[in-house]
Amino acid sequence: MSSDPTRARIVAVDAMDVRFPTSESLDGSDAMNKDPDYSAAYVTLRTDDAAGPQGQALVFTTGRGNDVQTRAIAALAPYVVGRTVDEICDDLGGFSRDLVNDPQLRWLGPEKGVMHMAIGGVINAAWDLAAKRANQPVWLFLASMTPEQLVDLVDFRYLSDALTRDEALDILRRAEPGRSARIGELLDSGYPAYTTSPGWLGYSDEKMVRLAKEAVAEGFTQIKLKVGGDIADDVRRISLVRETLGEQIRIALDANQKWDVAEAIEAMRAVAPYNPYWIEEPTSPDDILAHAVIRRAIHPIKVATGEHVANRVVFKQLLQAGSVDVIQIDSARVGGINENLANLLLAAKFQVPVCPHAGGVGLCEMVQHLSMFDFVAVSGTMDGRAIEFVDHLHEHFVNPVVIENGRYLAPRAPGLAADILSDTLKAYLYPTGHVWSERA
Amino acid sequence: MSSDPTRARIVAVDAMDVRFPTSESLDGSDAMNKDPDYSAAYVTLRTDDAAGPQGQALVFTTGRGNDVQTRAIAALAPYVVGRTVDEICDDLGGFSRDLVNDPQLRWLGPEKGVMHMAIGGVINAAWDLAAKRANQPVWLFLASMTPEQLVDLVDFRYLSDALTRDEALDILRRAEPGRSARIGELLDSGYPAYTTSPGWLGYSDEKMVRLAKEAVAEGFTQIKLKVGGDIADDVRRISLVRETLGEQIRIALDANQKWDVAEAIEAMRAVAPYNPYWIEEPTSPDDILAHAVIRRAIHPIKVATGEHVANRVVFKQLLQAGSVDVIQIDSARVGGINENLANLLLAAKFQVPVCPHAGGVGLCEMVQHLSMFDFVAVSGTMDGRAIEFVDHLHEHFVNPVVIENGRYLAPRAPGLAADILSDTLKAYLYPTGHVWSERA
Repeated sequence: MSSDPTRARIVAVDAMDVRFPTSESLDGSDAMNKDPDYSAAYVTLRTDDAAGPQGQALVFTTGRGNDVQTRAIAALAPYVVGRTVDEICDDLGGFSRDLVNDPQLRWLGPEKGVMHMAIGGVINAAWDLAAKRANQPVWLFLASMTPEQLVDLVDFRYLSDALTRDEALDILRRAEPGRSARIGELLDSGYPAYTTSPGWLGYSDEKMVRLAKEAVAEGFTQIKLKVGGDIADDVRRISLVRETLGEQIRIALDANQKWDVAEAIEAMRAVAPYNPYWIEEPTSPDDILAHAVIRRAIHPIKVATGEHVANRVVFKQLLQAGSVDVIQIDSARVGGINENLANLLLAAKFQVPVCPHAGGVGLCEMVQHLSMFDFVAVSGTMDGRAIEFVDHLHEHFVNPVVIENGRYLAPRAPGLAADILSDTLKAYLYPTGHVWSERA
Repeated sequence: MSSDPTRARIVAVDAMDVRFPTSESLDGSDAMNKDPDYSAAYVTLRTDDAAGPQGQALVFTTGRGNDVQTRAIAALAPYVVGRTVDEICDDLGGFSRDLVNDPQLRWLGPEKGVMHMAIGGVINAAWDLAAKRANQPVWLFLASMTPEQLVDLVDFRYLSDALTRDEALDILRRAEPGRSARIGELLDSGYPAYTTSPGWLGYSDEKMVRLAKEAVAEGFTQIKLKVGGDIADDVRRISLVRETLGEQIRIALDANQKWDVAEAIEAMRAVAPYNPYWIEEPTSPDDILAHAVIRRAIHPIKVATGEHVANRVVFKQLLQAGSVDVIQIDSARVGGINENLANLLLAAKFQVPVCPHAGGVGLCEMVQHLSMFDFVAVSGTMDGRAIEFVDHLHEHFVNPVVIENGRYLAPRAPGLAADILSDTLKAYLYPTGHVWSERA
């Protein structure tokens, strides 16, 4: 073991298969995900500096296949083990490019699916490590960088027809003057949240209405309901909630990719009288053109997507084609924080608000940093923006998100906040932890 | 072991990591793949009928990550093991939908990357098994089905804004009358090929020119060159080959995703005087809108893409947006033969020719069935169509493709032709086969 932290090296990339039996309560049930077991392919970049921080992040999955995800993460060890911590943390742009553009791994995507998510997990763990070494939460660590440092983190390949490096620099420079005031505002009063906790498709009407009322009482001004089952059921559920909450609360809807174009338009016409705020994932996340057609047809209901958008190239096109009113980045789908910087810059260029996807396990903890950084250093505004919040599984985290009066409080602990409690790791390790061995 | 073949069951899904050290000779080198080790994640659906056939297919990769691919295939065993062979082979549409639409596995894509390729590999192995049981090569097995049977194989989800089930039925019914004549034509004279063997980026000018001349002497009327390095180098290579071969030979170019939009247009303007036939993968395979812009700018040079297109939803949009002149399906990228049927039907609807990607290892063997089936039962024509051919690694197959006078002869052996020789499997197994252990 090295005792000199400046010479610390990465000695292992650990990937643990951690699963939560959420399917038993239908938490997380929607039109396409009937019975998810929320799971984490939990990444540790282990260093030989026992006294210093390790890098932690996770890739979220919904159960089966989490073992494939951990295997993909472990396969990245040769790219990481043996490098010094300094070398990685001082050039997170270069580290990201090395992994994303490796010519052999690239074949397995390119830049999509299991291998891209694995790369994103390792990159995010490196960000966690770098921010912990700087003794800052990731959002503040990012917000402490110059515009030049920030654009060096981004891979502009395939973006230049929509966003050049110089345009990105201009966006960041325009937001520089107010940074410290906005940091103060975040530390004082946090960032808006909306909640999906009431709206899972597997919940009874009574439970949905009760949870919706509770959400408003807790200070949320936007909730989200899952749709995409039978249209009559969708209409009944939405009308019930609208009647319960009145006109002032935003009700977003989420179809989780259930529909083709004509079905989406028909369903939205049926629920339009209840004034839904947006329809999320009306169809395939790959279908830029379909989203554009749906959006034109259902105006003024907004169209949102992003949690399954594979990479910045698809986000770019959704913006170029006018397919969406809201961009929903996810912390664990794309190639890590670096690619999400590209996504934030693209959204800023096209002046489309970013309302991140969260929930699952650990997604709230990780993605809050991106919205807060966006507020400080990119878009400079919270207008029309809110981070999804679902009140599940936060008790398993060392530094869980804190929601007060419908807002995320700014995290102050160093790093990305993805660290899972060691007791949880033991209990929920799949398939040998006691939670699973008892069920077997 | 069952001795009654009608009651045979799948007892295992084997996935072998087989790699060929092709990087040593720069075979396969291009602008994005500097040093591929062509590899197969080799799938076997093993049955308990020792006297009957097993199902074989492969997923092609370029080396590192092939272990992740085999792991993803192995993870599918619970979906397959224990099913009867009859149940799978009698409903290949249902089998495909079960795997592709599993709500938990779906999170890992959806329908893209490592998990989707694994699903495609298992589906293709089931097709191999079904065709072997019917004692037919896959192309003829497919061409023996009715239009109704064929559309039942296709998942029309996300396609209906461009192609409905009824439209697909119409396409197939219009092609019914001439089927047997076209089967005869294929058996007599095969299907056109073009060759990429001369054009790898790592080859010297002398080697390239010599191989190009040999290709024309062997009967090929189209060859392909890799581009995307320095523009001056590209111009020199293309002009040399054009000068050598004259104006009658088609010279296709392949940039392997190297460029952004403006770079692609600039490069094509530089080489336009040498009359290239198409530019393949000018930019990201996800970038529908960029391909459309490039295509309009470089007319009459054609635009081709597809080997890295993740699924039918992206193919659909490339056709809807007028992004491409040529669709290049790949046998091992999408969700197997079922999804490639959707791709063939979409191409037929939009009247765009399909010129499949092949090469790698085993891709020629597998994809020839799709073009031949397309000729018999979908498009009904070979006009503007040719299957890529690369003269690498065929000696490792039990039933290698046969090319004569620049054409693929119609395969007659039952199945998909993906079976690798057992000696090869032993020697090239990674990392323990002697080819690799000797290098270690």
